[in-house]
Amino acid sequence: MILTHIEHLGIAVKSIEACLPYYEGVLGLKCYNIEVVADQKVRTAFFKVGQTKIELLEPTGEDSTIAKFIEKRGEGIHHIAFATPSVADALAEAADSGVQLIDKAPRRGAEGMDIAFLHPKSTCGILTELCMEGTK
Amino acid sequence: MILTHIEHLGIAVKSIEACLPYYEGVLGLKCYNIEVVADQKVRTAFFKVGQTKIELLEPTGEDSTIAKFIEKRGEGIHHIAFATPSVADALAEAADSGVQLIDKAPRRGAEGMDIAFLHPKSTCGILTELCMEGTK
Repeated sequence: MILTHIEHLGIAVKSIEACLPYYEGVLGLKCYNIEVVADQKVRTAFFKVGQTKIELLEPTGEDSTIAKFIEKRGEGIHHIAFATPSVADALAEAADSGVQLIDKAPRRGAEGMDIAFLHPKSTCGILTELCMEGTK
Repeated sequence: MILTHIEHLGIAVKSIEACLPYYEGVLGLKCYNIEVVADQKVRTAFFKVGQTKIELLEPTGEDSTIAKFIEKRGEGIHHIAFATPSVADALAEAADSGVQLIDKAPRRGAEGMDIAFLHPKSTCGILTELCMEGTK
């Protein structure tokens, strides 16, 4: 599999507003977008540092997977996303290696980007996303 | 504070050997070093993807902080490390902003690099390291 860099880190937080003073005021990163992803029941705030985006994920309802993650494990890093030239190729290679897939084919993620998730049972405990390089 | 990129991610794992087939065989990353850090009771395996190192942290004893982390939260991302031109300056700024510090002054980390940790109580739940850019 060809991975070029860490495209983003998804970080589960209870409240974006409560975290902005840390990410903007302390770390000096600029929040360049906040959007609601209704079907995933999250509100997302975007920052960038070097090659990597930081995406804060705030649950918009108690049945959000992010709410459940926070309830179980507390606030923290929810998933890691690697950039790859072809999500379809990377996914096929992962399947051939016996990795358990959450998405059996690439699907459209934020900003029209091809994405797919690998199951943490096959990735040493970390929910892992593959996403298409250079389209975001 | 000036942050240039994510220098590394520290990932707690039960066994480096059990994870090598995933990181090397599936993701295609190359493990370029494995070393024991005796005073921290961890064994560490290093990979690189883009600007960012991935450091697998395996506990070498039951009283290792990594063993306790895994017991409490399971395998997963243990800390995030940002690169900064001056850890001393970044630490002073963090202290001025009221951030709770684990290290009140920079100390020597792996490979002679200046590092310092911020407490997760002040960083929206993520153990955060600042480390000197370009010295590793």
